[in-house]
Amino acid sequence: MQDLLARRDALFGAGAPLFYQAPLHIVRGEGAYLFDAAGRRYLDLYNNVPCVGHGHPRVVAAVAQQAGTLNVHSRYVHAGVLDYAERLTGLMRDGLASVVFACSGTEANEVAMRMARLVTGGRGFVCTDAAYHGSSAELGKLTHAREPRDAEIRSIPFPQRYRPLDEGATEVELRERHLDALQAAIDDFTAAGIPFAGMLVCPILANEGLPDIPAGFMAAAAQRVRTAGGLFICDEVQAGFCRTGRWWGHEAAAVEPDIVTLGKPMGAGVPLAGVVASHAHVSAFRQATRYFNTFAASPLQAAAGMAVLDVIETEGLLRRVADVGGYLLAELKRRQSHCEAIGDVRGAGLFAGVEWVADRASKTPDRPGAQRVVERLKDKGFLTGAAGALGNVVKIRPPLILQREHVDAFLAAFDETLREVHAVP
Amino acid sequence: MQDLLARRDALFGAGAPLFYQAPLHIVRGEGAYLFDAAGRRYLDLYNNVPCVGHGHPRVVAAVAQQAGTLNVHSRYVHAGVLDYAERLTGLMRDGLASVVFACSGTEANEVAMRMARLVTGGRGFVCTDAAYHGSSAELGKLTHAREPRDAEIRSIPFPQRYRPLDEGATEVELRERHLDALQAAIDDFTAAGIPFAGMLVCPILANEGLPDIPAGFMAAAAQRVRTAGGLFICDEVQAGFCRTGRWWGHEAAAVEPDIVTLGKPMGAGVPLAGVVASHAHVSAFRQATRYFNTFAASPLQAAAGMAVLDVIETEGLLRRVADVGGYLLAELKRRQSHCEAIGDVRGAGLFAGVEWVADRASKTPDRPGAQRVVERLKDKGFLTGAAGALGNVVKIRPPLILQREHVDAFLAAFDETLREVHAVP
Repeated sequence: MQDLLARRDALFGAGAPLFYQAPLHIVRGEGAYLFDAAGRRYLDLYNNVPCVGHGHPRVVAAVAQQAGTLNVHSRYVHAGVLDYAERLTGLMRDGLASVVFACSGTEANEVAMRMARLVTGGRGFVCTDAAYHGSSAELGKLTHAREPRDAEIRSIPFPQRYRPLDEGATEVELRERHLDALQAAIDDFTAAGIPFAGMLVCPILANEGLPDIPAGFMAAAAQRVRTAGGLFICDEVQAGFCRTGRWWGHEAAAVEPDIVTLGKPMGAGVPLAGVVASHAHVSAFRQATRYFNTFAASPLQAAAGMAVLDVIETEGLLRRVADVGGYLLAELKRRQSHCEAIGDVRGAGLFAGVEWVADRASKTPDRPGAQRVVERLKDKGFLTGAAGALGNVVKIRPPLILQREHVDAFLAAFDETLREVHAVP
Repeated sequence: MQDLLARRDALFGAGAPLFYQAPLHIVRGEGAYLFDAAGRRYLDLYNNVPCVGHGHPRVVAAVAQQAGTLNVHSRYVHAGVLDYAERLTGLMRDGLASVVFACSGTEANEVAMRMARLVTGGRGFVCTDAAYHGSSAELGKLTHAREPRDAEIRSIPFPQRYRPLDEGATEVELRERHLDALQAAIDDFTAAGIPFAGMLVCPILANEGLPDIPAGFMAAAAQRVRTAGGLFICDEVQAGFCRTGRWWGHEAAAVEPDIVTLGKPMGAGVPLAGVVASHAHVSAFRQATRYFNTFAASPLQAAAGMAVLDVIETEGLLRRVADVGGYLLAELKRRQSHCEAIGDVRGAGLFAGVEWVADRASKTPDRPGAQRVVERLKDKGFLTGAAGALGNVVKIRPPLILQREHVDAFLAAFDETLREVHAVP
């Protein structure tokens, strides 16, 4: 391993990110499992890209078949690409009818921002103060670590119930506080002479730490945005494709976005992303930009994307995610009362966040505590990660094929970890 | 076809770009050929992404094998990704030792600009006035159609011998004129208080129309850039991977860049791109940004990239490109003297540009003429495109596997077209 790490440092540069104090040398994946070079098996509770499981035969076969038949750019007509676009948009409400394909969530969010700016004639965007929407220069302006903000970006405190802006506020009061912050940001653009373009937000605030969001916030926010002439963009790179137990995160968040961006699980590892919006908005974007993306809207992307939809439907993953995810969340919540360090448990579908704190009363974030748990779980053969605005949330976001028996195995390791680290009886 | 086009308009939005007045419905590719739904065969003289030929069995097998074994992000260690990075950087001079992988040329050029800005502490970039380096908001600032320029971007007239800045200037004088323009742009940044970051340029000026560049320009430009504290970035998204008959376009252009960006042919259709620079520069970028790209540096990308290198080497494509490309270029140049409409023929390796003009004396660009030739060639079963700063250059950029017999077939169709369109005897 030291040899591999030295080569990696030389070839990728010093500081290319790696998971875990003792990094893993993974050589194989199958279903919900990853295997290291020593043959050790890990239950994958982290990876959302291989959404239908690692190396799913149907996806592999579809990719191989298409790669051997045709893989070329989108300036020729290809029925398979149209079939995929039709099936994908058919999974969304009527107004979300057209799509721009891309290769990554970064590219998709770039397209979405450009589309909103073209359609509205505005420039200003609102995001949350713990957002991450991509790695380009433009999207970097929305990344929470980057201060000061660009003149065309305003951020608002992300809505959450666990660490409320006002201690003691009701859920409705809290929602209004965050909506006021959104309105203030919009008004601030007006005052600065910057026309408003919209809001870009993950409907389940995945990077923010998957908080419980005051009910009705997203729908009311979309209303405020549209009233001000902007478009409401849901970044569903993490929330989409049944992750929440609904097809789309915006359904889970009860909001109707103007634009939806998609990515990570979309092609099960074949780089594939997309921007779905109304025909009018996509057409306006097409005509103004003549956007072309060499690798996107290719037969290969369509084959991978179609295979993912096939597997989700034939294996009944939407229902299974709701079932297995509900079980996981309920079991984690049961453990919360036994352990002072678990400040909060929340999530939807197969996406859970467990917030680690010094104690429940103070809610002091315990980032090292979350990391310790992640490391222990990894040592026991269970892969999770630490995330969230404060880095103290243990993130559980497995492939969608997870079964109850996997959850039981994980819970046994989680209980063992709580006993070892926190002396939970 | 009308039905397909109507679906495409509905699903992709009105205005998604298509080639040819009567678009092609391509269903299969094999080697140097594409086949439409009616079974008609076209010799592909346009596509550079399937560089080793459409559906190359070795690439398909490598992709299928890896997709079935493991395809996961780069925060675990994977030997295959390191092997590929080692082999790739081993094809460049010693100083270009480390790599950041990405999914598209756009992402690669974003990384390169960010790297140069971080390393130099500068912001200002010089590009040419007919450049295209990607579709993101930041790279859009370098795109020639976008005026006025962003404050951090200056463009200079692209160097060329066919339409010289000064009629009658010697090649050396012309080179100095363009270098003066570069120096003026750099000085302009200084005067505006914008620290200089570097120059981003395709070493063969592919999008500009593949002009004959005054000898020594690129090396002298790199020197000027470095003297001013900037980095010289070669965008090899088109020029790399043997296209010019050399491994890298910067070799063909006789310049040693600080950063090289790669894309299109790199994964033969699997979205794969990269940024190669010194270990120090890549490390500085890693440490400042913690850059992570979900789909990049994956085992799937590495398998595809490695298979491409395997095929290039085992099939001797570097030598073949020089041979077949040299033959193609010589034959096109022979035809120039017979046809007033052919203003200029130039290129390197398997990349040729034929500039269409009203007549050789006036050099008046004839964009419709170039398009007419492209359409006629397509009707005869040969796929080319129209490109260049003025849109009047017939672009011939086939897969690298092209053989002399393919060239002969193309030349017969080209001669026929000249007879039909320009009454060339």
